[in-house]
Amino acid sequence: MPNDLIDRIRLLRTPGIGPITFHQLIARFGTPAAALAAVPDLARRGGGAPPRLFAEGDAVREAEGVDKLGARYLAAGQGLYPRLLAEQDDAPPLLIAKGNLAMLDRPAVAIVGARNASAAACRFARGLAHDLGLEGLVVVSGLARGIDSAAHDGAMEGGTVGVVAGGIDIFYPPENEARQLAMFERGLVLAEMPPGTEPRARHFPYRNRIIAGMSSGTVVIEAAPKSGSLITARLAAEMGREVMAVPGSPLDPRAQGCNQLIRDGATLVQNAADVVEAIRPSAFVRSERTPYEAQPVEPGNDSALEIVLELLGPSPVPVDEIIRLSGAPSGAVQMALLELDLAGRLDRHAGGKVSLRTDC
Amino acid sequence: MPNDLIDRIRLLRTPGIGPITFHQLIARFGTPAAALAAVPDLARRGGGAPPRLFAEGDAVREAEGVDKLGARYLAAGQGLYPRLLAEQDDAPPLLIAKGNLAMLDRPAVAIVGARNASAAACRFARGLAHDLGLEGLVVVSGLARGIDSAAHDGAMEGGTVGVVAGGIDIFYPPENEARQLAMFERGLVLAEMPPGTEPRARHFPYRNRIIAGMSSGTVVIEAAPKSGSLITARLAAEMGREVMAVPGSPLDPRAQGCNQLIRDGATLVQNAADVVEAIRPSAFVRSERTPYEAQPVEPGNDSALEIVLELLGPSPVPVDEIIRLSGAPSGAVQMALLELDLAGRLDRHAGGKVSLRTDC
Repeated sequence: MPNDLIDRIRLLRTPGIGPITFHQLIARFGTPAAALAAVPDLARRGGGAPPRLFAEGDAVREAEGVDKLGARYLAAGQGLYPRLLAEQDDAPPLLIAKGNLAMLDRPAVAIVGARNASAAACRFARGLAHDLGLEGLVVVSGLARGIDSAAHDGAMEGGTVGVVAGGIDIFYPPENEARQLAMFERGLVLAEMPPGTEPRARHFPYRNRIIAGMSSGTVVIEAAPKSGSLITARLAAEMGREVMAVPGSPLDPRAQGCNQLIRDGATLVQNAADVVEAIRPSAFVRSERTPYEAQPVEPGNDSALEIVLELLGPSPVPVDEIIRLSGAPSGAVQMALLELDLAGRLDRHAGGKVSLRTDC
Repeated sequence: MPNDLIDRIRLLRTPGIGPITFHQLIARFGTPAAALAAVPDLARRGGGAPPRLFAEGDAVREAEGVDKLGARYLAAGQGLYPRLLAEQDDAPPLLIAKGNLAMLDRPAVAIVGARNASAAACRFARGLAHDLGLEGLVVVSGLARGIDSAAHDGAMEGGTVGVVAGGIDIFYPPENEARQLAMFERGLVLAEMPPGTEPRARHFPYRNRIIAGMSSGTVVIEAAPKSGSLITARLAAEMGREVMAVPGSPLDPRAQGCNQLIRDGATLVQNAADVVEAIRPSAFVRSERTPYEAQPVEPGNDSALEIVLELLGPSPVPVDEIIRLSGAPSGAVQMALLELDLAGRLDRHAGGKVSLRTDC
């Protein structure tokens, strides 16, 4: 096993290190090994106990298990890791992939929707997914019942990626086992969680951000108000991706979520040509990958840490504001935040906001 | 009969004087009588034979017929004539109205759609029209089969206006006789054509511009591509009015027109609240009526006429451009155009464009 991968796994699986903290550490220290070595001291400076680092033996065992499953890791910002996904602050530092990796080299569009969709909507999803394949697009979805399954089926020939909420070796819902096995062969399956992880409710929003994040746009078909599909659509919109929805009659309650999306500005789509037209400006242009670049490591700065602590409270505040109010150099503030983060004293929120953890 | 009305009828029914020319004449000469007196000389100066003025006796007979039908005239820019409609360059100079004129004192919204609409769509139209009445809105439509009829039925209690393409005393389609009679009693019916006029294909676009023009917005329900309902929607958009459409499944061919409208920027509406929200900025604000104001009559100006003739060709050109290129005073150019118009040598087009008539 390459040491870099093992170090990445160790860093990522260490308690208290989420994707944003992971990326900050790599950005500051350059390599996973250097980040791992720095963590205990950083945590101590932040006023907490050093976190228990994920053991090397456990990391090797996880990597061997992935290997044995015929899967492999993709590291954010490297190789075939989905380029659009890597643009996100909270991109999964590692993805586990099984299947045809060539799927990741083509523009992708997500199709999501109701698990209890109507037969007509499932037929529509299948047809749309098939036609998008003819346009050279890979169809991304979540391997759930209903619209997700129909979209994968329709795109099986043209190319499809399924993102699962649990481990890559877990079939959920169980009746999707044959479909997931088929996608190992003919499509691609991605998982953020380590093998063996049973999907829990909290995993699904993480899964949804991968679906939206790796796709140039997201098409919603038959989504109930307040459903997970609408969350995926919202995430896509927040990432600046195209949000598309298939309309329905106001007399059909299952059409309400999509109609509302359209009222809120989503593009109404009726066929693959509409989807291609909507995403063309972004999807078919290859952007340059931006590899990680280590920033100079600032030495720990006690006065910056004190000032930052004073400025933080239980309400989330933008990091930019902390930097501005502190009067300290940006690098010193970022380092102080990282120290507090690793000491378990900081919560990171959407939109680059941070707050002091209230239970400590 | 008041002389002013008789003069208006005579001016309007004189061959070659359409709504735009009518309004230009009134704007220049102040009264219908003065305009009538000026027409022969204007036409001669424009190089044509003076048009045969509509006989006074015929005008009196038409007015008496309208009276006998229990109907009355509304003159553009006066009294209860629909305020929003009067804003249009080509507003009908006279409308014939039968029913409850109080309908014209409330904000109006148009509902239009397919004659062969589905039962579900007709039920939806009825419900929407009813609910719009509860919001204080009058529902305007065209007394056609399908969506129009359903909209009138739903709004019969709340208030509805039917605009017919033929004379006010003509029932078309014949099965709508009972509905039109009911609207004489409980709603209002408007006609641009004189009594006895059988509706012809060319009358329907004129009827559609009245529907769109007197309404703060137009709601389209189930319209086939290239249907009359889409023309009404386009007219509404050109007038700067709100265009709204009810979506449907892409699997339903009857939804294609509306879905396309939404793609093109129409507001997706699912209920009366959506309609009210869309039109609120304009519908519930009373604007001041702008009465006609006679402009000073410019004496005929031979050199302006010559220059204008030189600048005109068979392709439509904006009047503003003619004025700019001519170097002549705006009033003189307008007068020259009016002379050519009344001489039958000018065609007026949408958007304030004019061209030289090619067959003379």
